[in-house]
Amino acid sequence: MIKVGIVGGTGYTGVELLRLLAQHPEVELLAITSRSEVDTPVAEMFPSLRGSVDLKFSDPKEASLVECDIVFFATPNGIAMQQAVQLLDAGVRVIDLAADFRIQNIADWEKWYGMKHASPDLVAEAVYGLPEVNRSAIRQARLVANPGCYPTATQLGFLPVVESGCVELTSLIADVKSGVSGAGRKAETSSLFSEAADNFKAYGVSGHRHLPEIQQGLARAASESPGAVIGLTFVPHLTPMIRGIHATLYARITREVDFQQLFEDRYAGEPFVDVLPPNSHPETRSVRAANICRIAIHRPQGGNVLVVLSVIDNLVKGAAGQAVQNMNIMFGFDECAGLSHIPVLP
Amino acid sequence: MIKVGIVGGTGYTGVELLRLLAQHPEVELLAITSRSEVDTPVAEMFPSLRGSVDLKFSDPKEASLVECDIVFFATPNGIAMQQAVQLLDAGVRVIDLAADFRIQNIADWEKWYGMKHASPDLVAEAVYGLPEVNRSAIRQARLVANPGCYPTATQLGFLPVVESGCVELTSLIADVKSGVSGAGRKAETSSLFSEAADNFKAYGVSGHRHLPEIQQGLARAASESPGAVIGLTFVPHLTPMIRGIHATLYARITREVDFQQLFEDRYAGEPFVDVLPPNSHPETRSVRAANICRIAIHRPQGGNVLVVLSVIDNLVKGAAGQAVQNMNIMFGFDECAGLSHIPVLP
Amino acid sequence: MIKVGIVGGTGYTGVELLRLLAQHPEVELLAITSRSEVDTPVAEMFPSLRGSVDLKFSDPKEASLVECDIVFFATPNGIAMQQAVQLLDAGVRVIDLAADFRIQNIADWEKWYGMKHASPDLVAEAVYGLPEVNRSAIRQARLVANPGCYPTATQLGFLPVVESGCVELTSLIADVKSGVSGAGRKAETSSLFSEAADNFKAYGVSGHRHLPEIQQGLARAASESPGAVIGLTFVPHLTPMIRGIHATLYARITREVDFQQLFEDRYAGEPFVDVLPPNSHPETRSVRAANICRIAIHRPQGGNVLVVLSVIDNLVKGAAGQAVQNMNIMFGFDECAGLSHIPVLP
Amino acid sequence: MIKVGIVGGTGYTGVELLRLLAQHPEVELLAITSRSEVDTPVAEMFPSLRGSVDLKFSDPKEASLVECDIVFFATPNGIAMQQAVQLLDAGVRVIDLAADFRIQNIADWEKWYGMKHASPDLVAEAVYGLPEVNRSAIRQARLVANPGCYPTATQLGFLPVVESGCVELTSLIADVKSGVSGAGRKAETSSLFSEAADNFKAYGVSGHRHLPEIQQGLARAASESPGAVIGLTFVPHLTPMIRGIHATLYARITREVDFQQLFEDRYAGEPFVDVLPPNSHPETRSVRAANICRIAIHRPQGGNVLVVLSVIDNLVKGAAGQAVQNMNIMFGFDECAGLSHIPVLP
Repeated sequence: MIKVGIVGGTGYTGVELLRLLAQHPEVELLAITSRSEVDTPVAEMFPSLRGSVDLKFSDPKEASLVECDIVFFATPNGIAMQQAVQLLDAGVRVIDLAADFRIQNIADWEKWYGMKHASPDLVAEAVYGLPEVNRSAIRQARLVANPGCYPTATQLGFLPVVESGCVELTSLIADVKSGVSGAGRKAETSSLFSEAADNFKAYGVSGHRHLPEIQQGLARAASESPGAVIGLTFVPHLTPMIRGIHATLYARITREVDFQQLFEDRYAGEPFVDVLPPNSHPETRSVRAANICRIAIHRPQGGNVLVVLSVIDNLVKGAAGQAVQNMNIMFGFDECAGLSHIPVLP
Repeated sequence: MIKVGIVGGTGYTGVELLRLLAQHPEVELLAITSRSEVDTPVAEMFPSLRGSVDLKFSDPKEASLVECDIVFFATPNGIAMQQAVQLLDAGVRVIDLAADFRIQNIADWEKWYGMKHASPDLVAEAVYGLPEVNRSAIRQARLVANPGCYPTATQLGFLPVVESGCVELTSLIADVKSGVSGAGRKAETSSLFSEAADNFKAYGVSGHRHLPEIQQGLARAASESPGAVIGLTFVPHLTPMIRGIHATLYARITREVDFQQLFEDRYAGEPFVDVLPPNSHPETRSVRAANICRIAIHRPQGGNVLVVLSVIDNLVKGAAGQAVQNMNIMFGFDECAGLSHIPVLP
Repeated sequence: MIKVGIVGGTGYTGVELLRLLAQHPEVELLAITSRSEVDTPVAEMFPSLRGSVDLKFSDPKEASLVECDIVFFATPNGIAMQQAVQLLDAGVRVIDLAADFRIQNIADWEKWYGMKHASPDLVAEAVYGLPEVNRSAIRQARLVANPGCYPTATQLGFLPVVESGCVELTSLIADVKSGVSGAGRKAETSSLFSEAADNFKAYGVSGHRHLPEIQQGLARAASESPGAVIGLTFVPHLTPMIRGIHATLYARITREVDFQQLFEDRYAGEPFVDVLPPNSHPETRSVRAANICRIAIHRPQGGNVLVVLSVIDNLVKGAAGQAVQNMNIMFGFDECAGLSHIPVLP
Repeated sequence: MIKVGIVGGTGYTGVELLRLLAQHPEVELLAITSRSEVDTPVAEMFPSLRGSVDLKFSDPKEASLVECDIVFFATPNGIAMQQAVQLLDAGVRVIDLAADFRIQNIADWEKWYGMKHASPDLVAEAVYGLPEVNRSAIRQARLVANPGCYPTATQLGFLPVVESGCVELTSLIADVKSGVSGAGRKAETSSLFSEAADNFKAYGVSGHRHLPEIQQGLARAASESPGAVIGLTFVPHLTPMIRGIHATLYARITREVDFQQLFEDRYAGEPFVDVLPPNSHPETRSVRAANICRIAIHRPQGGNVLVVLSVIDNLVKGAAGQAVQNMNIMFGFDECAGLSHIPVLP
């Protein structure tokens, strides 16, 4: 049993972390903090947790986070970069579910996130927490940058072909659709039911913060292709569902391989990536509330365009579930511990 | 470990049973039958089960159901009454999730369900599987009639006041709202997305099959009130969500008691009934995908009308979850075994 | 052609007023005000209006509202009571879509709305704008208090039986379900898509502002029953759809009449109330985007409880459409002018 | 006033035609046929039409369709190709909302639609009813093939760049998302609420019937580019909303032009195509229930990929509305007659 703390638990990644950790066999929840909700029982804000989580939100300043073995930051961007250092200094390991440590290029990060980075040196140390790429580094990491939801679905869909260098890297297209919980639990007009229901739209076409994160990841994956430049068009959309991301990925084939086999081989040992049989169409609900990425590969009309379909639950494999997976790796637990929930369908 | 079979597994109660049983520590799934889908892998029809359930649908005639310790019928009404007897004769215990054994009065059953009953004697033996009422009888039962979804939410909401005789039994009102999965997975126009989404309606106001089931249960509960006649107005509605039932119950108070205390006492030892604090409004999502009934009690403007709000997930506490709870009781397992999932919110 | 102004047009009743008025044959839109959006083109905020409405939001202080023949207040509660008087003094007629002038008892209003009333004398003059009750008074009115959405659906459903005195007035029950647009376009957590979708809940069971409004209306309707006291239990619910209200109304029958005939006779001449044939179940989508109330009458199992089902679109017959209907009456237009849209189904 | 008939009016395009035609100033509805619903009042099946449409469904054999000036076929594929000829011979003009006359290459049509074509000669005569391309031919047409919903949104989005030859024609990508009403009103499991709600998926990636229709249209548009071959990857998706199509279109730029200007010029005179200002993101709800296509143009990061966003209501500009627009053109009415509804938002 390890002692676990959560900083900032009033959003959707917070409640999802609580759902997963409260059922985890190796975890004792020690503290969850919220400046605005001090002393409110967690289960009062999230009645789904009644009977399972007895904690109250505590003041970040008074919470005994330094007694934890690991602390998750489920905070807005810009918080972990200020507070992680004290915890690390006290020997606490940290997983940040926000974006503070995801981008290695500090200037890039500052441009996309519109603030000055408070801990550039920690960025250099942080391990990008995509287990399918960085498992061994995660095992040793003090500080893990948990990937974004779009980047998880997109990278897992592109990795096999980018690593093997069989598609044109300069003309990748990611047309990605997200459920509304991806926008968080902030009270914003655009996330209202009456705005988002029975409606579909693209947003951020001119540029979205997840673009540099995906490009960085794909560039690493393409390291076998010297001098590779990743050219990616990334278009996010909002679709009227609560959870789920569906990435539809397009790549121009430059070298013939058995793509189905390529994907199956790449993910053969991965407990949380499921390559579907040929001619499948993964549905987001097939991974609802579970830590799974399901992928299907198509080649329409036998042409030279590869179409990859990749689905995850944005709150699980795209956030809290992946964070727990990283924790399992960091502490030498069974990687599937606490993550074997079967998706909820219908 | 017990051996378990499912007859008729292509509907929503079937897939939900599979989700729960595949994660149950005491269960080995032996067979699941479907006449129309023989040899189709279950996970091909329900991709959410990929990696968790390896079974194929088998022919009901060839399935080794008699080797099971228990068989669940997740079939349409009218099937279990024909097939249960052979299994019972072979020493297999049976839980019917359909309505065949719910109504003790055969004439009543035949009127509401529009068919001749094939096993009236088994009806007499069958135990109505509402653990909060019949726990000890369920323990001994060979044959359990699993309650309907509306009846579960409605009875659990009315039981404390009917048992204690503090409301007028002749003027009860149950205004109940159900998600669309309650209509099953049959291809019917009225259940189409484009018919049911962004829409709300009542149906069956002149009479619904769950009315006699609720009346029977409440009459039993009122056995302390000699000669009690249950007068119930039951109006079901369809609401555009997948899972969930919300019962809004109205009763005229005839005797003053501390209603909050009455409910808390009645359900004090119940693992799956949660009485909320005063002035609460349970949401259906607070029990989504979990075997819980949450109840709140109100007395608007301090008047003489008691309002009880009762929510369940129709596929879990209203069907498959309650069936597993009954199985746990029948076999002496921990009643919560395999049923401790935390609700999925959001 | 009359000149029309709108105060506060950034909410859902505002955009709905614009949709209806922009297509109205007798209306010239002169100004729409918003303090927060001065100079923003209306069609930039509501792209559905591109090509139909060329106005920009103007500063309330600078808008030429006094040049209008009529001004609609689509503002939060508490605004019209401060600003209506200047317009009325300038000879402008006013329809308030908020609650400022709906309750004749000032003390009651101040209790439910939590503020001091700024124009008690105008309350006395205001006409309650339910045309099916007050048509002739509306014709002469300078100031119309447009009814709330719940009160419209509930009163139209109860009126025939309350007026004719054939039900018990002290035990009326209104179990009412609303789409989320009823909560307005304010950014509030509880109205977020991820909170309200795939979910159902009651709220305000202990007391809701629409309760005194309904009671006042029903008491007037019962004026033939001397000394009548209206006892109403009113439970509002939130259902995951955008538009629509479904009222399920329960009354104890005290005198036998032909209820179907009673309703058909009561609404025979009403252009916007449609009494359905016996045994019907009105759906909210059957009135979507149209100024219609559809009503069905039931008497389950031939008992002594009358069940009335009443549906409206909360933004049309429950707000903007009824306001336009009132305007038509006030200016002697065809009452259906600009209101003959056929509901949008599916 | 012209006399109008509809063959096959029990689906969504049928009821939408009725909604539009019943409000059309130049139309008298003479007959609507349905083999399965003879003598059922239309308004009984679609209560939204109560008070607006008094017709009953009539037997196709007995309906006086030959007395009509124009007949719409809102039938499944394969009906109009058998029945249109008699009407044409009798001097009745015909618009087919199904696919029977859309594809000029008969072999292609028979391959994609899996049946032998009954009237190949009529195909040659039929005019493809996309007014923005074929307005003058439509004016003279006896027989109009009304375009599919995906093809309308996709062609209108691609036309300006394909006609002007400034993008690579061999690598076009159309990632298109449709509401569920696009699948029609047939009772099919995959269209059930509990299957389609809170879910997102691609389908038909290996090939969809609308692909050859789009390719044919784009090839015509590219006629200025001699020998042009259209290479199109078309991926349709199902999104949980009732109405709406959102096409996200990708093209590789081969020649620099002012794309915003190009689109604005191309559609300058078009009453039903709205080019949004730069950096816009059209929402499907901004065209809900209206005959409008809204388009926005993007060039992410100033690169060489053009992204076009194009939205329509699949039942209006993608079906019934476009059919009425074609009728208006054929009979010399104002092209906007009966089509000036403002979209319903929210």
